[in-house]
Amino acid sequence: MKTETTKTTRRALLRAGFAGGAAALATGTAAGARAAGDPAITEIQDWNRYPGKGVDATPYGSPSSFEAHVIRKNVPWLTSDPISSVNFTPLHEIDGIITPSGLCFERHHGGIAEIDPNAHRLMVHGMVDKPLVFTMADLKRFPRENRVYFLECAANSGMEWRGAQLNGCQYTHGMVHCVMYTGVSLKTILNEAGVKPEGKWLLAEGADASAMTRSIPLEKALDDCMVAFGMNGEALRPEQGYPVRLVVPGWEGNMWIKWLRRLEIGDQPWQQREETSKYTDLLANGKARRFTFLMDVKSVITNPSPQAPIRHGKGPLVLTGVAWSGNGRIRRVDVSVDGGRNWHTARIDGPGLPKALHRFYYEFDWDGSELFLQSRAIDEAGFVQPTKDQLRSVRGTNSIYHNNGIQTWHVTEEGRIENVEIS
Amino acid sequence: MKTETTKTTRRALLRAGFAGGAAALATGTAAGARAAGDPAITEIQDWNRYPGKGVDATPYGSPSSFEAHVIRKNVPWLTSDPISSVNFTPLHEIDGIITPSGLCFERHHGGIAEIDPNAHRLMVHGMVDKPLVFTMADLKRFPRENRVYFLECAANSGMEWRGAQLNGCQYTHGMVHCVMYTGVSLKTILNEAGVKPEGKWLLAEGADASAMTRSIPLEKALDDCMVAFGMNGEALRPEQGYPVRLVVPGWEGNMWIKWLRRLEIGDQPWQQREETSKYTDLLANGKARRFTFLMDVKSVITNPSPQAPIRHGKGPLVLTGVAWSGNGRIRRVDVSVDGGRNWHTARIDGPGLPKALHRFYYEFDWDGSELFLQSRAIDEAGFVQPTKDQLRSVRGTNSIYHNNGIQTWHVTEEGRIENVEIS
Repeated sequence: MKTETTKTTRRALLRAGFAGGAAALATGTAAGARAAGDPAITEIQDWNRYPGKGVDATPYGSPSSFEAHVIRKNVPWLTSDPISSVNFTPLHEIDGIITPSGLCFERHHGGIAEIDPNAHRLMVHGMVDKPLVFTMADLKRFPRENRVYFLECAANSGMEWRGAQLNGCQYTHGMVHCVMYTGVSLKTILNEAGVKPEGKWLLAEGADASAMTRSIPLEKALDDCMVAFGMNGEALRPEQGYPVRLVVPGWEGNMWIKWLRRLEIGDQPWQQREETSKYTDLLANGKARRFTFLMDVKSVITNPSPQAPIRHGKGPLVLTGVAWSGNGRIRRVDVSVDGGRNWHTARIDGPGLPKALHRFYYEFDWDGSELFLQSRAIDEAGFVQPTKDQLRSVRGTNSIYHNNGIQTWHVTEEGRIENVEIS
Repeated sequence: MKTETTKTTRRALLRAGFAGGAAALATGTAAGARAAGDPAITEIQDWNRYPGKGVDATPYGSPSSFEAHVIRKNVPWLTSDPISSVNFTPLHEIDGIITPSGLCFERHHGGIAEIDPNAHRLMVHGMVDKPLVFTMADLKRFPRENRVYFLECAANSGMEWRGAQLNGCQYTHGMVHCVMYTGVSLKTILNEAGVKPEGKWLLAEGADASAMTRSIPLEKALDDCMVAFGMNGEALRPEQGYPVRLVVPGWEGNMWIKWLRRLEIGDQPWQQREETSKYTDLLANGKARRFTFLMDVKSVITNPSPQAPIRHGKGPLVLTGVAWSGNGRIRRVDVSVDGGRNWHTARIDGPGLPKALHRFYYEFDWDGSELFLQSRAIDEAGFVQPTKDQLRSVRGTNSIYHNNGIQTWHVTEEGRIENVEIS
């Protein structure tokens, strides 16, 4: 019976191969182009002649070996040492709105702390009624929530301030990821300790070699912040702060303290290194913007893009990308194929969660001519993603952080793609 | 500066340790119990004295070594060979509604087909206007969607038909997972080929060693089915059908053909092995229910459970679990701690997506007495999860498939937990 099925399949497939070829030309799909000399069409790869590995092979699974190129990548020349550096999410290789945990970009200041969750403690002290120390088991006895949020490093797209630099959305925009977090509302933890009336700011400190510390206004801490121990259904990954991190929705990734060990309540900011010499925005006049916490409305086309050129020639083309805003939901994403002369409303897919990545698609028939691809996001607060020149006219070109300018990809007639700027 | 911070921390922590102890008794959190002889309280583990691995260490990340116990597990005595067997999702170790791809249970009938996506083809033929063959690149040129669905094996909880058997929700209920799929609507693919008026059924065939084949009514195929190439943002995992699988929302997992290579349109079901000798429900009178596609409303408490006993003693306890229904959304989940005498409405967390897992929580103060934990789900179609005895009164005890009965966990005063049945 199985043999019969297989025979039928091979014969039918042979016939269908050419029919598919014909149909392909009509619809513009590429099967036809390959039908003639393609061994896979004239003689199917018969995977089903050989049994594969069983259910005991991979207690914890991994991607196919054919996906080995889908990885985070760092830029060695960017920093002197990988323990204080960054790698980038391969945005052009993923889809939907949830970033796979193994591909979430990393930014460390003293390497990945390898913490024993049974020995780890979280202390809450300072201007509180009763200082407290929590074990991980303690934290898991408070009411729990699951929420999806994007996390963007303030320096994402930072190298583009002075003009097009890096050739690929992984490098220009890959310091962002979007994860479903499991944890306890920070408000619940702070209420347990009892914040004194004079308490106005929160200091969060990590247990890593850099003892990363940031000051957070109490209003934000009591609003939507989380003390998270889970990501995408499982425990936090080591490089994402295992066993516990702070979640600061819509604000600079640097504030989402990983390996969280200490929360102190005070009446003013602590003026830590990461909020004075770093993570400030030097303007043209020499003054610096400080405490620029919010990550503004932003988007990027991930496919096609320099690392994902058009290989199928003319015809139906799926353009896709991601948009996000620290202000909440994305109301609309516009796409241009002619460098901003004409705009088309993209299709936003999925639930549209606040302060989370939004996935957009724009399907069109490519006539094979040169393109200048752009996307422009508009958030529910009414903010519109600016051009890079509009940004520079206000902030100059000294900045490293908070570049949410519109990205342009130049597509050649051959389908090759480059990072460019047009004025 | 950093040294100062560290010193302050250690001193403050020493004080806080005992304060925390006091507070702990009040709130019932367990820090206090450990404060006295706990080296972690009297001398903190100073992870931040040593730099960790850098951003070049893990191009594709994995869980912490402290999470090595969080894995899929198979039951060797269940089948004669792991290439035609099952392993189970560790439901008691995960949270939220998205199952990590590496932990999604596996059910194979001929092992995992290792397919080269460049050589793989999907054929559409039978009662269609034009038979077609698609490459993976072709499929990615059609409009794409991302949708979250649970997948449950029809045999999930099957071993419980005759009474409590396996001690742990991983084994009693672990043949379910919930994933965000990226793919093309099956309707789009079938419309491309053009289904003839006489076409009433779809045959889907896999490219694995078992050439898994199932018949699907065309109404369902044209409703909400997907041809999916992505899961949780990345490519399908090999054990989940890489490079392409069928998604049949709310219906038996066996119909979600993995390694999909063929779609045939016909005017009646094919009477394949997996819909005749298997995946039918033998009743007490010797007759068998057939084509029982839909997975009924169901739920289970994942924590506490036999594999996740109560270790923290009396006081605040977070009870959690998952609920799902092939009919759509879950309207309500009730929880009982006294074997069904009294019911409490659980808190459903998250967006509540149709035909997806729903996460529920019920927080209460445990007085340390014996408990009989049960959960009962009600879906938006009004179906109520039955007791196992109610199921048996209708279906007898010959069945293997479609056991959606209410699960009972017995909790002892010491917090140990066992799979039991009560009448």
